[in-house]
Amino acid sequence: MSNSADAARKIAEPSAQEAVRRVLDTVKAEKRTSLTAPEGKVVCDAYGIPVPKEGVAKSAADASKIASSMGFPVVMKIVSPDILHKTEAGGVMVGVKTAADAEKAYDTILANAKKYKADAKIEGIQVQQMLAGGTEVIVGSITDGSFGKLVAFGLGGVLVEVLKDITFRLAPATKDDALSMLDGIQAHDMLKGVRGGDPVSRDALADVIVKVSQLVSDFPEIVELDLNPVFATKKDAIAADVRIVVDFDYKPRPAPRPTEEIVAAMNRIMQPKGVAVIGASAEDGKIGNSVMKNLINGGYKGEIYPIHPKAADILGYKAYKSVKDVPGVIDTAVFAIPAKFVAGALAECGEKKIPGAVLIPSGFAEAGAPELQAEIVEVGKKYNVRLMGPNIYGFYYTWSNLCATFCTAYDVKGHAALSSQSGGIGMAIIGFSRSAKMGVSAIVGLGNKSDIDEDDLLAFFEQDPNTNLIAQHCEDLKDGRAFAEAAKRVSKKKPVVVLKAGRTSAGAKAASSHTGALAGNDKIYEDVFKQSGVIRARSLRQLLEFARGMPVLPTPKGENVLIITGAGGSGVLLSDSCVDNGLSLMSMPPDLDAAFRKFIPPFGAAGNPVDITGGEPPITYINTVKLGLSDERIHSLILGYWHTIVTPPMVFARNMVEVKKEMEAKGFVKPIVASLAGDVEVEEAAEYLYQNGIPAYAYSTELPVEVLGAKYKWARGAGLL
Amino acid sequence: MSNSADAARKIAEPSAQEAVRRVLDTVKAEKRTSLTAPEGKVVCDAYGIPVPKEGVAKSAADASKIASSMGFPVVMKIVSPDILHKTEAGGVMVGVKTAADAEKAYDTILANAKKYKADAKIEGIQVQQMLAGGTEVIVGSITDGSFGKLVAFGLGGVLVEVLKDITFRLAPATKDDALSMLDGIQAHDMLKGVRGGDPVSRDALADVIVKVSQLVSDFPEIVELDLNPVFATKKDAIAADVRIVVDFDYKPRPAPRPTEEIVAAMNRIMQPKGVAVIGASAEDGKIGNSVMKNLINGGYKGEIYPIHPKAADILGYKAYKSVKDVPGVIDTAVFAIPAKFVAGALAECGEKKIPGAVLIPSGFAEAGAPELQAEIVEVGKKYNVRLMGPNIYGFYYTWSNLCATFCTAYDVKGHAALSSQSGGIGMAIIGFSRSAKMGVSAIVGLGNKSDIDEDDLLAFFEQDPNTNLIAQHCEDLKDGRAFAEAAKRVSKKKPVVVLKAGRTSAGAKAASSHTGALAGNDKIYEDVFKQSGVIRARSLRQLLEFARGMPVLPTPKGENVLIITGAGGSGVLLSDSCVDNGLSLMSMPPDLDAAFRKFIPPFGAAGNPVDITGGEPPITYINTVKLGLSDERIHSLILGYWHTIVTPPMVFARNMVEVKKEMEAKGFVKPIVASLAGDVEVEEAAEYLYQNGIPAYAYSTELPVEVLGAKYKWARGAGLL
Repeated sequence: MSNSADAARKIAEPSAQEAVRRVLDTVKAEKRTSLTAPEGKVVCDAYGIPVPKEGVAKSAADASKIASSMGFPVVMKIVSPDILHKTEAGGVMVGVKTAADAEKAYDTILANAKKYKADAKIEGIQVQQMLAGGTEVIVGSITDGSFGKLVAFGLGGVLVEVLKDITFRLAPATKDDALSMLDGIQAHDMLKGVRGGDPVSRDALADVIVKVSQLVSDFPEIVELDLNPVFATKKDAIAADVRIVVDFDYKPRPAPRPTEEIVAAMNRIMQPKGVAVIGASAEDGKIGNSVMKNLINGGYKGEIYPIHPKAADILGYKAYKSVKDVPGVIDTAVFAIPAKFVAGALAECGEKKIPGAVLIPSGFAEAGAPELQAEIVEVGKKYNVRLMGPNIYGFYYTWSNLCATFCTAYDVKGHAALSSQSGGIGMAIIGFSRSAKMGVSAIVGLGNKSDIDEDDLLAFFEQDPNTNLIAQHCEDLKDGRAFAEAAKRVSKKKPVVVLKAGRTSAGAKAASSHTGALAGNDKIYEDVFKQSGVIRARSLRQLLEFARGMPVLPTPKGENVLIITGAGGSGVLLSDSCVDNGLSLMSMPPDLDAAFRKFIPPFGAAGNPVDITGGEPPITYINTVKLGLSDERIHSLILGYWHTIVTPPMVFARNMVEVKKEMEAKGFVKPIVASLAGDVEVEEAAEYLYQNGIPAYAYSTELPVEVLGAKYKWARGAGLL
Repeated sequence: MSNSADAARKIAEPSAQEAVRRVLDTVKAEKRTSLTAPEGKVVCDAYGIPVPKEGVAKSAADASKIASSMGFPVVMKIVSPDILHKTEAGGVMVGVKTAADAEKAYDTILANAKKYKADAKIEGIQVQQMLAGGTEVIVGSITDGSFGKLVAFGLGGVLVEVLKDITFRLAPATKDDALSMLDGIQAHDMLKGVRGGDPVSRDALADVIVKVSQLVSDFPEIVELDLNPVFATKKDAIAADVRIVVDFDYKPRPAPRPTEEIVAAMNRIMQPKGVAVIGASAEDGKIGNSVMKNLINGGYKGEIYPIHPKAADILGYKAYKSVKDVPGVIDTAVFAIPAKFVAGALAECGEKKIPGAVLIPSGFAEAGAPELQAEIVEVGKKYNVRLMGPNIYGFYYTWSNLCATFCTAYDVKGHAALSSQSGGIGMAIIGFSRSAKMGVSAIVGLGNKSDIDEDDLLAFFEQDPNTNLIAQHCEDLKDGRAFAEAAKRVSKKKPVVVLKAGRTSAGAKAASSHTGALAGNDKIYEDVFKQSGVIRARSLRQLLEFARGMPVLPTPKGENVLIITGAGGSGVLLSDSCVDNGLSLMSMPPDLDAAFRKFIPPFGAAGNPVDITGGEPPITYINTVKLGLSDERIHSLILGYWHTIVTPPMVFARNMVEVKKEMEAKGFVKPIVASLAGDVEVEEAAEYLYQNGIPAYAYSTELPVEVLGAKYKWARGAGLL
């Protein structure tokens, strides 16, 4: 939590919290679902959220004094329980501009009121600061089923309603979060002042956001809140209207398990000393047979215990009737039995104190049997057995040579850990990995996510020395908040890439507030991912390419990207891709420009891209890339290769790998990616480059830059740039 | 031209044009670069562009009458050559609301004026319609170096300045173009009325756009025009302010060559009876040697004439000193000599009446020698020899077995015609084509585009029976208007796909008007491409995939797309891709839902996607796909395959191809694309599907949908849907 959130909390404790509690108690007692405007004001005051100043004047002189103290213009209104229609009674004057006018207005309103109703009881005349000018913005909060409390920010006015230009963060939000929201809307330039207008006070606005986020975090029963509009000026941000909706039945999600507890169990499950296969089979084509074979042929070195009601041994391994009969320790029980038998066998696992069950069987919630799923969840809870699945392909953990799955085996060791909610996507991960020779540390199926989900995996992979990137496919997040909190922590150390499917699903529940109505479910994912340092993949291929390429690249030390290309045409397209992927093309200092020019033909172009032209021999690529790697002002290289007879593809590739190694030996370690244009031989060259630390793609000027862009996005989010 | 544009022209001829001409003559005589407000009003009146009504009253009764005739409120202003500061003189009254008030205002203003300056000559009091309410929009025009006259439309106000939410069309624009502009801005919902406001009159607004576009087309010297703001209401659209900038030195581009002339020459060049190789060589590694070998080995059946100063024959072909010595007809002369000799040899080609020169040599404008390029352009013009290049790889026309290039030969016949401005991208096209077994009709290098450019190719491929798709890479368009006009015509018959590189270049020239300042060069390309029916590729890979996939697919007969998937996870991602690519997921009628349910397990899901679930045998895929193809309400299928032992990849693929053929024989011809999730065997299956008319991709849920989406985009643009 930032200083500012701390500050809000300080304000909010304890008297402020008590003030809000008193208001909410009244609302609850009166069985209301929303606060009145004065109640809203009390709540805002308690948390230091600025609202218009106001006071009640008892005399003309008093009115003048109050108005002067708050600044002009002011609005003045009769305060009388006997006058309901104030305007009709001539009891309202807006735009009162001077102290003298305030005195005069006092008298006029009083006279009007008496004329309107001679016997009205007059309690005084309210003087209220009149807000105008500045930029109208909206600050609000909603309660999401997965993410819980969210704070929202957007611009006021009709255009924003039309454009849905609003941004979200988890509440409580830090001051940095709040400031990032001001930059996170499409029309952020509006806040900088347009047409000669003043910029808003970013500080004041961020302060309101932080305080709102603290308020809704302190009082979960506040399920929706709108400050709309907030008038933001160069000196302050004042909420002109407050709307607060409460739900006293709202139950926040229970806190997730402590990370240490998750890790302790997951470490045993993912790297077990012993694996039981419940429903092991000697019969080809059975799932219990495939699992056994994968364990054996995969090279798993721990104990394998087939569980079978009758068999004495299966595939040469002694079989047991129940896990309870197994003498040794079992860390992981893989289930390959029909759904209806799972709960019973699971209870035995519990009694055996097995920490994890891998539930391959389908036939649960996904197949219209939620009661079967509820039952196993209960059993798991009772015995503290963590459940993976059900309805999954199982999982791979290559560094233990473990294929606890019925799918094809996969054993290429690497440092990307992938997971998928869907079995089909899991198979695509395996196929792509094999095809691209992508090493993985793990591939995990999550299926119905009855228990183990994405945040459990994050906690495990965070501390897994064999993993340096986590890539996840998901359709929903059961507990978005737990995920976001884990991701925020983990992404500081290792990239977390997520493909969120179902972007177009109905999503967000119908909401009664303005902020709620603006909230698209996918926009929340988008913003919370950003807040948590998650790199969002836009397609399945991108998830896979990021998983493959990001671990290959070293972390860049700065933002300066240089393109060196043999094909001018590739240079232009690579530049476009840099812009698309948020990369900064370094502007070339004159001395460096001159240094590059020495290596390239006179009609080549230095600057950025460095266009060495198409007909050049290998030495031109070598010289320019060496210079690019050795100059400290350059932080990353993008190479554009053009297939020619003078520098054939594999000659280029071998030379680049050599240069890279030579320069690395001298301490120059920088990300390099490459785009290869040419005949089919460039595919072999791209493959060779990739296997040697240079993510390279044939016939594409965008894929290499996307991978580099993802690495940069991660490095920025992790505070490494 | 639409009826509306005709109407505008009718209004504009001849008296209206004369009125504008008189105004412009005055401006020119006075050496001004912009029009005064009254001049702007005259121009608008002449073209029927509504501006506020006004009249000069000579009496109070007159004022009342004039004001009543135009509707209230009105503004009234003193008209006197002796009163410059009208407001100071009390000579202006705004918001005059009734006929009685107008009379009173007349008297008041007159009295004020006399008080201010007793001897002032009073010509009367101007009564002007006061505009307010409605939606503020901008209609304007700019003059682009490549596209010429463009008309622009956007919303008024600061947000639009910030968001640059503006759209362009070539002028003159049709009524349909104009209406598409109203839908073409991001905030288009603003025009439909928000917060209970009235929608604008689309007709009135489109009418203003059409008329502005006609005006600037009739008077090319009007280089910039702003109507800002235009007040658009439910009944009219009135320009409150007119700003017109002129440049009497502006020279519109000369009209492009007539299409017949282009086609006559291109037909000879692309399908020559005889080819001369100027600079042919027997020496390995020389460009003139590679060209000879490609012609010979490529299987070209026409005459080949090597041109060489000394050799008697080259590679078995009789050589000549000059093309002029060749006895037979030469249609195409391929140049493989240094830049400095090109002009001379080109003149000889001219004398020999060769229609086209393929200028492989570099060393012209791209290498700092624009004078050499200017020289060859002159020679080409003089002799009417069309020039391809210089600085190119040459071209391929597979249906004549013609490889007029020094690059690797390529001979797989197909129906996609590709071209590139850059040699590197050309090599990527060849590599990709070979790798993907993509048949092409032609691959053409355009390089410096000294003469032949994209619109020449469009004209040729339009009538080329071997081509049914045109895919072009370009960095700029020399004559954007000629391209757009050709593309608009051609895209009605054959898809035109363009990868426009250099999206981020400075582009649009600094402009002095508001509309000009809002114009980003790339936005103009984006909008004009759309107006011309061009499918814009977002990446090199996409250009290539579209070129490969679109000709394979039949044209869909309607918008209803159905997903049939074995993997639920793929179904979700495929649905996302449908939304991303503008495809409509058909909502499933109950009878069809029931029909699908008969084929799938009870826990599968009908609806759309139809989820047949993962464990199903081939017959389930077969039955559901047959149903999908035979039901007339479904227009396209997207298949999601999940690799299982029950239905292995090649079994799935063969079955799908069989079903497709069987149903085609029965007259059910629909686009089908497929996404394959599984282990590496799915790559072979995808390849098989693709070669048999079903664009299919392994490990990707987005690529097949992008290809289908492009086909739909084209079909819609061509009016086939």
